[in-house]
Amino acid sequence: MKRITLSIIALCQLCLVFAQWGPQSKTESHTLHSKVLGADREYTVYLPKSYEAETDRKYPVLYLLHGMTDTDKAWFWRGHVHEVMDQLVASGEAVEMIIVSPNAGGSFEEGHWNGYFDMPDWKYDTFFCTEFLPHIESKFRIIGDKAHRAVSGLSMGGGGATGYGQIHTELFSSVYAISALMSIPQHGAAQPREPGDKLAILTQSVIDNSCVKYVEEADEQRKEQLRTVKWFVDCGDDDFLLDRNIEFFQAMRKANVHCEFRVRDGGHTWEYFHSALYTCLPFVSRNFEK
Amino acid sequence: MKRITLSIIALCQLCLVFAQWGPQSKTESHTLHSKVLGADREYTVYLPKSYEAETDRKYPVLYLLHGMTDTDKAWFWRGHVHEVMDQLVASGEAVEMIIVSPNAGGSFEEGHWNGYFDMPDWKYDTFFCTEFLPHIESKFRIIGDKAHRAVSGLSMGGGGATGYGQIHTELFSSVYAISALMSIPQHGAAQPREPGDKLAILTQSVIDNSCVKYVEEADEQRKEQLRTVKWFVDCGDDDFLLDRNIEFFQAMRKANVHCEFRVRDGGHTWEYFHSALYTCLPFVSRNFEK
Amino acid sequence: MKRITLSIIALCQLCLVFAQWGPQSKTESHTLHSKVLGADREYTVYLPKSYEAETDRKYPVLYLLHGMTDTDKAWFWRGHVHEVMDQLVASGEAVEMIIVSPNAGGSFEEGHWNGYFDMPDWKYDTFFCTEFLPHIESKFRIIGDKAHRAVSGLSMGGGGATGYGQIHTELFSSVYAISALMSIPQHGAAQPREPGDKLAILTQSVIDNSCVKYVEEADEQRKEQLRTVKWFVDCGDDDFLLDRNIEFFQAMRKANVHCEFRVRDGGHTWEYFHSALYTCLPFVSRNFEK
Amino acid sequence: MKRITLSIIALCQLCLVFAQWGPQSKTESHTLHSKVLGADREYTVYLPKSYEAETDRKYPVLYLLHGMTDTDKAWFWRGHVHEVMDQLVASGEAVEMIIVSPNAGGSFEEGHWNGYFDMPDWKYDTFFCTEFLPHIESKFRIIGDKAHRAVSGLSMGGGGATGYGQIHTELFSSVYAISALMSIPQHGAAQPREPGDKLAILTQSVIDNSCVKYVEEADEQRKEQLRTVKWFVDCGDDDFLLDRNIEFFQAMRKANVHCEFRVRDGGHTWEYFHSALYTCLPFVSRNFEK
Repeated sequence: MKRITLSIIALCQLCLVFAQWGPQSKTESHTLHSKVLGADREYTVYLPKSYEAETDRKYPVLYLLHGMTDTDKAWFWRGHVHEVMDQLVASGEAVEMIIVSPNAGGSFEEGHWNGYFDMPDWKYDTFFCTEFLPHIESKFRIIGDKAHRAVSGLSMGGGGATGYGQIHTELFSSVYAISALMSIPQHGAAQPREPGDKLAILTQSVIDNSCVKYVEEADEQRKEQLRTVKWFVDCGDDDFLLDRNIEFFQAMRKANVHCEFRVRDGGHTWEYFHSALYTCLPFVSRNFEK
Repeated sequence: MKRITLSIIALCQLCLVFAQWGPQSKTESHTLHSKVLGADREYTVYLPKSYEAETDRKYPVLYLLHGMTDTDKAWFWRGHVHEVMDQLVASGEAVEMIIVSPNAGGSFEEGHWNGYFDMPDWKYDTFFCTEFLPHIESKFRIIGDKAHRAVSGLSMGGGGATGYGQIHTELFSSVYAISALMSIPQHGAAQPREPGDKLAILTQSVIDNSCVKYVEEADEQRKEQLRTVKWFVDCGDDDFLLDRNIEFFQAMRKANVHCEFRVRDGGHTWEYFHSALYTCLPFVSRNFEK
Repeated sequence: MKRITLSIIALCQLCLVFAQWGPQSKTESHTLHSKVLGADREYTVYLPKSYEAETDRKYPVLYLLHGMTDTDKAWFWRGHVHEVMDQLVASGEAVEMIIVSPNAGGSFEEGHWNGYFDMPDWKYDTFFCTEFLPHIESKFRIIGDKAHRAVSGLSMGGGGATGYGQIHTELFSSVYAISALMSIPQHGAAQPREPGDKLAILTQSVIDNSCVKYVEEADEQRKEQLRTVKWFVDCGDDDFLLDRNIEFFQAMRKANVHCEFRVRDGGHTWEYFHSALYTCLPFVSRNFEK
Repeated sequence: MKRITLSIIALCQLCLVFAQWGPQSKTESHTLHSKVLGADREYTVYLPKSYEAETDRKYPVLYLLHGMTDTDKAWFWRGHVHEVMDQLVASGEAVEMIIVSPNAGGSFEEGHWNGYFDMPDWKYDTFFCTEFLPHIESKFRIIGDKAHRAVSGLSMGGGGATGYGQIHTELFSSVYAISALMSIPQHGAAQPREPGDKLAILTQSVIDNSCVKYVEEADEQRKEQLRTVKWFVDCGDDDFLLDRNIEFFQAMRKANVHCEFRVRDGGHTWEYFHSALYTCLPFVSRNFEK
């Protein structure tokens, strides 16, 4: 006990002081006006510890997509991505990067559009590529090439991440799909309860952009492009979406596009999504070009 | 794709329906009046899935203690213990049990007492043993013997859990200490800022109940009693409390009291506390008598 | 450094002494003559640390089956099951049990029969149930009921373990299948290179005893029997047998027989088989009745 | 089942064919004559899959040191480093590198010298730096700078790796110490049983090169050099060397040299050493400059 020279309490106070004074990673939420969508869209961004001090440094970027009826806050408030990143950067398992979560959802009852693909009257993919990504990558110090850009997401956002990785192979170096909505069979489409029913429009867009069908129908040139991306599929053994993820992995293997595949314990839950970050963030880090 | 007979959406609706109709685990908060403390005390309790249907069944119990300035809600709102339990019970890694988190804290600024030991004017240990535990174990269907009772906690609650396991070896079959405040050196006591300063009283109670000193000073009879409990100490390599946990483990080993010890990656953070549940809940489950 | 009272070297010597004098777990190989097979059969057995001292104690048993062209030594020499057990028992993650690996293989070139099912001229399943199991469970102190008996295996032995669990639901409380040969499609049968070709006979027996077909064709009574067993399927994402394991898991889920499923990183390799023991041994331990 | 177009057996045969025809990683053992030692010394080397085909490519290198009485074969025969590497490279968790294990041991009874430091009549460190390393890095296509060179080892080799990282900070980018013999207290020296007793000479060299003392006595310039290396210390909670590893970590923290520290379940066993490779190889991979 003699060797303890600073008291616990003093240490605590020191920690608090340090936390206030020293550079820390931080999370911010901002709003962007979209002409494509004709609406304001929020997003939340994680900036790494060194961001403020190293003013000439540019960073890799991860776009992290939320699930149905959630918003850009979900990965931060319940997914605790800020805390996971801080820990993995401290141990060296993840590299410092900027993480951006755009809002592509909200409650259907409150009239919000959900979905990452282009839908009638709501061209979200167009918005993402022509407005959101350019805005983010000029507003923040982001390297801004394929070699330093990744995309991940959960459930609807896992399907969005996979779809973006497929359609825009020129944009992303790696894709990590968490409990992903990889496809919906045609008869699984939600029936419109009224004209313009947003849930029905969403499910149709997921059918039209089936990640499984995309691989199955890819010609050799397209497969070659898919091989320029690193793929990781992660889904729980109790997840009701597991069979879709299996079909996707099998299609990828058949197409000879390398894809990591894991089935861990769990269902379609935040415990699963959150724990996936511990694999996802090192994976995208490894695949950023150094 | 032909084998998909229920649409995703129908499945989702089914899930929602099931969730509302089928038996589920649940979390409740209640209040108990303490004569010992002269105050109302809240607590939060997790009841397993089978609790309502199996009306004759009694369960093991885990007392799960929170940290300084937190309350009985912390393990549920930020520790997500409800969701972790559901997953581990589903996979068989944890057994169905009742988890109880008593309130032993709150903000010092708002005048709340913090701490698990008996302090002048606030005999929390006495309250716990003579009022709280008997109340809980009669109100809920709890087996109520040492072989089916465990205690765990984080930080101040990790020290509390360890101290309770030491002082009350007749009560608990296992102790799992997470990032625990095992001791404070004498010169580490907070200086009272005013008479009756609750932080100063707390730190003095932790000094007086040093878990390290307790083992070092134990006679052979006491050591023999300590050996009737299963011990597990889990602390991060970046935790400012690590050295105290090392001292505790070394004292236990020297006293020939078996104790599992782990140092995983992380600091004194909720990411660490939360992840410890995945080891803690199986550990206490294994050590309940079947 | 002052607190070090025994030198490292003295400690090492102490360890050696202790290892020689104190009770240790051990591994033995024995031979049994089978009338059914008309041949001598070897087996290797792990006896836990307490076995010799606690002469009245009976133990649960795990039958651990090897893969094609391997023998009863494989789980010990390359799978290191002895060392894994010792570690998991020390930490409490596995209970003390007896582990038995029968020889059901060897090199085809040297003329050895391979396989766990009844084949023309080589009724291994009959041997296992009527000669081997009774011999083992009388020779060693084994509890000898379903509640304390489990079966596991790798590759051909994973298929054997699953098949035994299906055919003999009255014998086993749990089955853990590692990288299992769950089935072979009819056209996948090896063509006999000569009459009595043992590889061709083996592949036909695996086809006839397809674990997938067994579940798909089970009636409700059979399904109810399957539900009395705990199932765990574990297969690597790069394993050429993965699709068969997926089919098995999907058939089990459709039949409403609970089955844990994991796909971890790896191929059909000893690194995978070995690492599965760290999940397998705690799984069967939890499912032994206490 | 209809989708299975290749039979299992055909696949197996394909695998065998592929294994024989396609490029594979490989392990070789060679002998080098040392003038410094006046003796031939063996070593074993792992060459990655692409080594033969990519004849212009140079690789990072990991020196992997064995323990007392073991030889250069131990990490391959019992540590299975070849198989672990293949798996981690396939999943992207480790980068292709060359792994070299020099022989610094063998049975004392058979008269072999053990140890990595310079000893009277056996200047192993001098041999390593002036003969072995230059030989290896010219014979194989190795990048050959600090940024692409790492050192790791177990037990006596963990102490050797740490010592080499300390003494030769200009050589290594990272050090991963497994269950390391970080120091021996003076009274722990083996007493010479005869003049020139090699065990006594070894223990004295470990005392003289105490990794703990080295950090405790380092001046600020030396600490600054230590900070140019990435450090990782990994030791089991039942290892008789744990306290020495704790002392080393505490000394590093006090010296403000960043060091990762883990205490996992286990003793001074091959199960522990082997499992450490799954953390070690990704760690050194991350710390190679890209």
